[in-house]
Amino acid sequence: MRSLLFAPAGRADLVAKLPRSRPDAAIIDLEDAVPPAHKEDARSALASLVGDLLADAPGLATYVRVNAPGTSWFPDDVEALPAGLAGIVVPKLEHPEQLTEVSDALVGAGRDGLAVIAGLETARGILDVRDLLGGPVTAAYFGAEDYIADLGGVRSAGAQEVLYARSRVALACRVAGVLALDQVVVDIHDADAFRADAARGRALGYRGKLCIHPSQVALAREAFTPSHEEVAAARELLAEAEGAAADGRGAIVVAGAMVDEPMLRTARDVVARAGDGST
Amino acid sequence: MRSLLFAPAGRADLVAKLPRSRPDAAIIDLEDAVPPAHKEDARSALASLVGDLLADAPGLATYVRVNAPGTSWFPDDVEALPAGLAGIVVPKLEHPEQLTEVSDALVGAGRDGLAVIAGLETARGILDVRDLLGGPVTAAYFGAEDYIADLGGVRSAGAQEVLYARSRVALACRVAGVLALDQVVVDIHDADAFRADAARGRALGYRGKLCIHPSQVALAREAFTPSHEEVAAARELLAEAEGAAADGRGAIVVAGAMVDEPMLRTARDVVARAGDGST
Amino acid sequence: MRSLLFAPAGRADLVAKLPRSRPDAAIIDLEDAVPPAHKEDARSALASLVGDLLADAPGLATYVRVNAPGTSWFPDDVEALPAGLAGIVVPKLEHPEQLTEVSDALVGAGRDGLAVIAGLETARGILDVRDLLGGPVTAAYFGAEDYIADLGGVRSAGAQEVLYARSRVALACRVAGVLALDQVVVDIHDADAFRADAARGRALGYRGKLCIHPSQVALAREAFTPSHEEVAAARELLAEAEGAAADGRGAIVVAGAMVDEPMLRTARDVVARAGDGST
Repeated sequence: MRSLLFAPAGRADLVAKLPRSRPDAAIIDLEDAVPPAHKEDARSALASLVGDLLADAPGLATYVRVNAPGTSWFPDDVEALPAGLAGIVVPKLEHPEQLTEVSDALVGAGRDGLAVIAGLETARGILDVRDLLGGPVTAAYFGAEDYIADLGGVRSAGAQEVLYARSRVALACRVAGVLALDQVVVDIHDADAFRADAARGRALGYRGKLCIHPSQVALAREAFTPSHEEVAAARELLAEAEGAAADGRGAIVVAGAMVDEPMLRTARDVVARAGDGST
Repeated sequence: MRSLLFAPAGRADLVAKLPRSRPDAAIIDLEDAVPPAHKEDARSALASLVGDLLADAPGLATYVRVNAPGTSWFPDDVEALPAGLAGIVVPKLEHPEQLTEVSDALVGAGRDGLAVIAGLETARGILDVRDLLGGPVTAAYFGAEDYIADLGGVRSAGAQEVLYARSRVALACRVAGVLALDQVVVDIHDADAFRADAARGRALGYRGKLCIHPSQVALAREAFTPSHEEVAAARELLAEAEGAAADGRGAIVVAGAMVDEPMLRTARDVVARAGDGST
Repeated sequence: MRSLLFAPAGRADLVAKLPRSRPDAAIIDLEDAVPPAHKEDARSALASLVGDLLADAPGLATYVRVNAPGTSWFPDDVEALPAGLAGIVVPKLEHPEQLTEVSDALVGAGRDGLAVIAGLETARGILDVRDLLGGPVTAAYFGAEDYIADLGGVRSAGAQEVLYARSRVALACRVAGVLALDQVVVDIHDADAFRADAARGRALGYRGKLCIHPSQVALAREAFTPSHEEVAAARELLAEAEGAAADGRGAIVVAGAMVDEPMLRTARDVVARAGDGST
């Protein structure tokens, strides 16, 4: 899941175009992209939206982002989930009890097989992140815009204002065994800003990125797939190390750097990710 | 509280000048700015200092920074608090029990109506920040100089060495519903350094800054008040969104950025802060 | 302990050269620098390696890095510890129970007088760092390479991807009263990169650095020893402050900066460290 592309449930035209950019997953949004006055209409249209989408792109991993647990919309959103989905996205997770609330709602709707992607994007959600990655959660995203809005801060180019929270989420995800998905880039016309932000996210341990425009999908795929150069360098490193181990040399130097077990583990990870199906 | 200006209790001349730069609050310091040998004298002079100050500037929100709980000076400092204060500043808060100690001391002195600004500026205070924002605390500041001195680190221009602690305090304040006040800038002649540091603090969610020189007050007020451009942009965004909502469009694009609920919340916050009394 | 130099236990030539660069401590590594197939041989050679080293450099504080608790090698590594060591380095500490495991193994081997340097270098170790600095631990290092390999992230020049974890470890060490040792720099030919990284580590409160090449030892010593300029400036500041205190002035300005208690504490620390044996 290197790229997850959003479309608002209220925009059938954008939903229909979701498969074109070949994202790893598609997310139809009932939450922030749908104004309160249109929540009911968007929910009513969901079944036919998803039906048409999956008829057009049968293999596409499709998620619905429901409104947050605790809102009046949440129970009806879950009841309205159509067949064929890969999972749901639950935004603004804040309290451990909400994990049970989500599980119970899914069971109640007969949909307990669905994967759950948790949204961590409020001050409380970041503070208590460690307690929010259990139960049905299989992946989680860090929502920088919502988080900074909740804090009353300001987003900036280098994203220093979210380094603490973004690092905290990646670490908690790793310990919980949950896939970490990186923040949105709101300026949809600035590919360089997206690449720079995705590189920072990958450095922190994120495995993919939420996308809000089709043009971001290819950028995300590229950013979270090791490059040919990285894969070649990793393969060379592993070959050198095998040779050194066979000769009984423990410490080897490649390109000026001491090579030891952590570097080898990263190299194996790079090679493994190169092989998991690129475009 | 965008600007809080300090003056040492031992410097009657500086205390008398506090109102001139029109800070949102004035703090008369019995702690770090008063050497041990002069603590008693400074405390004795407090009542007349505050009396003169409030006679000259009756509307000025005035605080006294007492010595830390646990020092031999703390109980007498609280007993000596004069009438007319808005509150006290309690430095180097470290243990949750100290919240009770502060409350009890205020009750004992018949001053339990006073607001309490907590100072978080030691390694332990930062580690346990989450447990230190209850009881009588209504605001808290992050003290970078004391914190780094306690760690045995080094302060630097970009303030990377405090990004973790400064982010941690802002987040804990938000969750506790406590106003977050940003670190001092010690170089009182470098307005650009102050502006840059205040912008970083505002990005992290701080609402105002401690000032140690009158020239910093206007800089703090400017940094923590949304600019005319920000307010105009926020108003435009909200108008666009209202139009889009009326038309049933959920997702709109303004200046290349997807606009959704978090951006609207930030825009509303900017407009609200613009109106809360500038200059 | 400003510089701790590693050599792989499998490289008798490198171990013999450890004293030449005059590190504050030497670490003979049984862990990451020794491939699994050579663990037994390396352990068997340990007693004579250490014996020869200490015969050559009797005053050298010498540590052995054993394999992590929980591996099959750990108990035998501890049993094989030769006489004359200053302590052991325990890598990849993750669970509080491992503190007991380490203590018990040392007692069992009759070596409970040895100092223990804990390695914090996994996602779980960083998350739970606060619970891992008790028992026999007297110092701890942050292992950036292993940590980022465990997270699945990417190391970069500015080290932003580890700022959260590196800050977290330094803070926890300070509160636990444990000496904090900074991350390795893997590019052994780039002195400027080492200096920049060491300066960042010192700013965060670290007191020394792990070195993986003799050329890094002098760089570490220099980075973690206050410079002549720093010491002179600190002495001047303290003299000014003494004068001001004698005159009853609380707040003084030196070089454009307000001087108060935290700055004086840092100055005293600088002067103290200058005197603890340079070159």
